[in-house]
Amino acid sequence: MDLVADVLAGKRLAIARLLTLIENEDPGGLAALDRLFPHTGRAILIGVTGAPGAGKSSLVNQLARYYRNPPDGRQPRSVAVVAVDPSSPFSGGALLGDRVRMRDLAGDPGVFIRSMASRGALGGLARTTAAMIQALDAAGFEVILIETVGAGQAEVDIARLAHTCLVVEAPGMGDDIQAIKAGILEIADVIVINKADRPGADNTERALRTMLEFGPHAPLDKGASSAASAGEARVDSISWTPPIILTVATRADGIHELGKAIEDHIDYLRQSGLWQERERNRLQSELDNLVQHTLVSRWRASLPIESYKTALAGLANRSISPHQALEMLVKRDQ
Amino acid sequence: MDLVADVLAGKRLAIARLLTLIENEDPGGLAALDRLFPHTGRAILIGVTGAPGAGKSSLVNQLARYYRNPPDGRQPRSVAVVAVDPSSPFSGGALLGDRVRMRDLAGDPGVFIRSMASRGALGGLARTTAAMIQALDAAGFEVILIETVGAGQAEVDIARLAHTCLVVEAPGMGDDIQAIKAGILEIADVIVINKADRPGADNTERALRTMLEFGPHAPLDKGASSAASAGEARVDSISWTPPIILTVATRADGIHELGKAIEDHIDYLRQSGLWQERERNRLQSELDNLVQHTLVSRWRASLPIESYKTALAGLANRSISPHQALEMLVKRDQ
Repeated sequence: MDLVADVLAGKRLAIARLLTLIENEDPGGLAALDRLFPHTGRAILIGVTGAPGAGKSSLVNQLARYYRNPPDGRQPRSVAVVAVDPSSPFSGGALLGDRVRMRDLAGDPGVFIRSMASRGALGGLARTTAAMIQALDAAGFEVILIETVGAGQAEVDIARLAHTCLVVEAPGMGDDIQAIKAGILEIADVIVINKADRPGADNTERALRTMLEFGPHAPLDKGASSAASAGEARVDSISWTPPIILTVATRADGIHELGKAIEDHIDYLRQSGLWQERERNRLQSELDNLVQHTLVSRWRASLPIESYKTALAGLANRSISPHQALEMLVKRDQ
Repeated sequence: MDLVADVLAGKRLAIARLLTLIENEDPGGLAALDRLFPHTGRAILIGVTGAPGAGKSSLVNQLARYYRNPPDGRQPRSVAVVAVDPSSPFSGGALLGDRVRMRDLAGDPGVFIRSMASRGALGGLARTTAAMIQALDAAGFEVILIETVGAGQAEVDIARLAHTCLVVEAPGMGDDIQAIKAGILEIADVIVINKADRPGADNTERALRTMLEFGPHAPLDKGASSAASAGEARVDSISWTPPIILTVATRADGIHELGKAIEDHIDYLRQSGLWQERERNRLQSELDNLVQHTLVSRWRASLPIESYKTALAGLANRSISPHQALEMLVKRDQ
């Protein structure tokens, strides 16, 4: 009946229960995580993000199948999927639809799928996702796929939780400079052009390649120190340019190539020493997020509701400015 | 030589200088804002957001022209544009490109344009944008257009700064359930299908209309109290269903209709009493943002860097959990 022991043993019911406790910010869930934390750090974390309509869910589905049935006689790996939709009130239904497509994986004990259609605060979402990943990592899943919808700061924050980040585009999106603008290319370790059987795939590829080569900020490894970044010019240094992989997820085209590209990137992280650096960055952003949440919660709990209301009323009639309201509400030593 | 007096007098150089001070979080800028705050609350704030590639910049351009040269012999209104790109490192150049298109407006003293291609933290961006809007409001601009790129939480936060929020789609995007998923329809007061001369505009319109009518969470006014929301069922209540306006911004088609829809929404806010409620929500989210920023900054300033490093090292080797690190770093009374 020990939740922690059951999660470590990989019992599905216990894992699902722990994830719900985490989602509800239940103190019992947090206590369990404290005990599970020493068992984390083993899973490979793969982020999958990109513009809406690019077919991320199908791609995640195929990647899960790939790790369950790897080519060349390799060992199957257990896979967990965390699907996060930070933006829309319609997501509940849509995500449900996505998951229906994964039904064929559902009977496989080596696959665990969890959707989060939360509309919670941004920081909260990244915080909860980080905690869920820890739980799944401790439960022994070898590959964790983190799928997010959209191209905003929320996705960037969630992508920071991953070792390897896939950015998925589709033909007709990459042609437009506007798509690149919001294209979060900066966080891409591997770029996927999905639906590559559609017209315009080569245009999209060309546009993306140009962006990568001539962009004012060609993507450097997000975890790289300035020394490592500058090292790109040196012949002997190990560097990484995001490869562009063409896929048609609905018929599994290009998935082996994608699996290979992910493997190459993980090898690159390990050989360059960036693996440890990414781990550290990951843990640091998780800690910062937790600290911020705690400071704000405690401030809220300590503040008489009347003072807050008075400050808001003063703002509304313009008798005090936002900064003056701040002075009223936050003590000097806070 | 008084910055505040010059801004109140609408002097462009002073306004530009103040905006730069705000962007740099200069204390002089904040002090000036304190003095300007009583003069705010007069401008109409219009947010423009939506998927990449939908043509938001052209639309903003046309709206600015519309307010400068209104139909039916109405008085021209002064217009400020704040263009915010929260996501991409490539934005600097792209935004510059957008602004070139606005060159024809640049000689007009009744138009002020400011781009922010900042890659700062999310909260920081909304905070800085809010402060800039206050400055432009105090400077006497009657209409302030706030343009954001993307469809994530950053845009939702920035949209909260506006009285009326336009969500811009384009044909070929709205057909896909995925586009709706990240489509931030929940914050739309007016929906615009731009590039409506492209094939598929009617499909997009139909899809959006279905979403609005049958979605599990049909958009309610974001500022509405639950009573006002429930009031939708009553015959005598004033309610708002986001209209769908078709435009071709590049040739100014549909801009008068859009201008009319915005006016209708502002009238609706005023008549229903929701105007005050939105103002209050706006000021509250600004205050909350400011408080959070202040609490975290002060915590950071008070923390010995060595304690932080020790905690991070403990996390990295899994000797302490994130929650245990938090206990080490945040004092009970903080």
